[in-house]
Amino acid sequence: MPRVKLTVEYDGRPFVGWQRQDNGPSVQAALEAALAAYCQVPVTVHCAGRTDAGVHALGQVAHADIPRRDSPDTVRDAVNFHLRPAPVAVVDAAVAADDFDARRWAVRRHYLYRIVNRRAPLTVDAGLAWRVPKPLDAAAMHEAAQELVGRHDFTSFRAAECQALSPVKTLDRLEVSRRGGEIEVQVEARSFLHHMVRNIVGTLRLVGEGKWRSVDVARALAARDRAAAGPTAPPDGLYLMRVDYGDGPPEDVA
Amino acid sequence: MPRVKLTVEYDGRPFVGWQRQDNGPSVQAALEAALAAYCQVPVTVHCAGRTDAGVHALGQVAHADIPRRDSPDTVRDAVNFHLRPAPVAVVDAAVAADDFDARRWAVRRHYLYRIVNRRAPLTVDAGLAWRVPKPLDAAAMHEAAQELVGRHDFTSFRAAECQALSPVKTLDRLEVSRRGGEIEVQVEARSFLHHMVRNIVGTLRLVGEGKWRSVDVARALAARDRAAAGPTAPPDGLYLMRVDYGDGPPEDVA
Repeated sequence: MPRVKLTVEYDGRPFVGWQRQDNGPSVQAALEAALAAYCQVPVTVHCAGRTDAGVHALGQVAHADIPRRDSPDTVRDAVNFHLRPAPVAVVDAAVAADDFDARRWAVRRHYLYRIVNRRAPLTVDAGLAWRVPKPLDAAAMHEAAQELVGRHDFTSFRAAECQALSPVKTLDRLEVSRRGGEIEVQVEARSFLHHMVRNIVGTLRLVGEGKWRSVDVARALAARDRAAAGPTAPPDGLYLMRVDYGDGPPEDVA
Repeated sequence: MPRVKLTVEYDGRPFVGWQRQDNGPSVQAALEAALAAYCQVPVTVHCAGRTDAGVHALGQVAHADIPRRDSPDTVRDAVNFHLRPAPVAVVDAAVAADDFDARRWAVRRHYLYRIVNRRAPLTVDAGLAWRVPKPLDAAAMHEAAQELVGRHDFTSFRAAECQALSPVKTLDRLEVSRRGGEIEVQVEARSFLHHMVRNIVGTLRLVGEGKWRSVDVARALAARDRAAAGPTAPPDGLYLMRVDYGDGPPEDVA
């Protein structure tokens, strides 16, 4: 049975998150229902990064085994047909190695967090960005963010419910830049702890508003205590943008 | 009674358009209701460009006379308070000259039309862009677009219901550019005919798909016949971005 790699985009607003749950519609359930309608048998999908309720994705990756040998473009179009009207779309489908694993083979995940920095409420961007009314100093946020780049124990930025075995992660990139009235936070790492990006953004906001400096961010990191860092930013502004893969599982998990 | 200039942003999806109508909610009615709630008297607003149903604005401009002398920031925040939960927001308020007229004083209007060029349905951009499945040649679209720049009789790009006195308009800018999977059409003129931008975009799509060339666009313009140009693009991708003003009414209408 061929394994397919699906690149998936979704608007997180109507979902309880990626993962199938009893308390509401999930992206996984929508995708599995569409795949089942197309394949006429139950299909399970596995994703690279389980996003929370309200978090969006432009480039989530998932794999599934399907009992059909249609061309990848046909798979994409057929699944999209059955996904309607859910705001989930397969933007790319490809044949994958039989042992490809969307989660285990991932070597890097790219997230974007969008902040709209203004007093007025959001209209077209409602639910798609975080509105922060006070003027933010993006350069100060970027400078402080560099305290977090590298291999660290990120306990201070980890949700209580996080199930990762270790709080040690390597943050490869954390860039804050202003484009007009919008501030973009770009984050890259092989993997993340639960709420890690949102907790980092909520902390950098304190820097942007002038309440914290770089040294406070460094101190919060060193404390290894969730209470030492800033509040969790809302899901609205968070996007899983892309997941990178090598030719197999990364060496240290092979 | 002071006149205020309001810069207004809205998501056009839930509205029948800018103008107050009997058949559904309008941006004008939402704004007038919020101003009335704030001022405790009926207030009429006049805009720079009446947008159609489903058309968005990031920088619509309107003027109104209000019986209050609060600071412009207070006006903005108070009106936004009363606008909730409608997806309309005053992003800026300013005191204007007593004879300022949002429509008559405008010297240039800037529109953006967003096309997402892909097979997959839209998710986060649903209602906020036009999805065109066939690959579009943005460079060819841009080249053909230049046939329309300048002062012309735009009858071929004018809706039947258009109430303008003359079909002659001066198009100052019409640029088509690709950014990844998205094509942006930027259009500037002092004023436009009804549906003019959407009819231009629907025509340029034919060029992008290779069905038409620049010469066909020139011929459509010269025909002065709506049937000679391409179909009307949907409202989803259209945004009124900005309106420019001088220090008074433009000379030829003064």
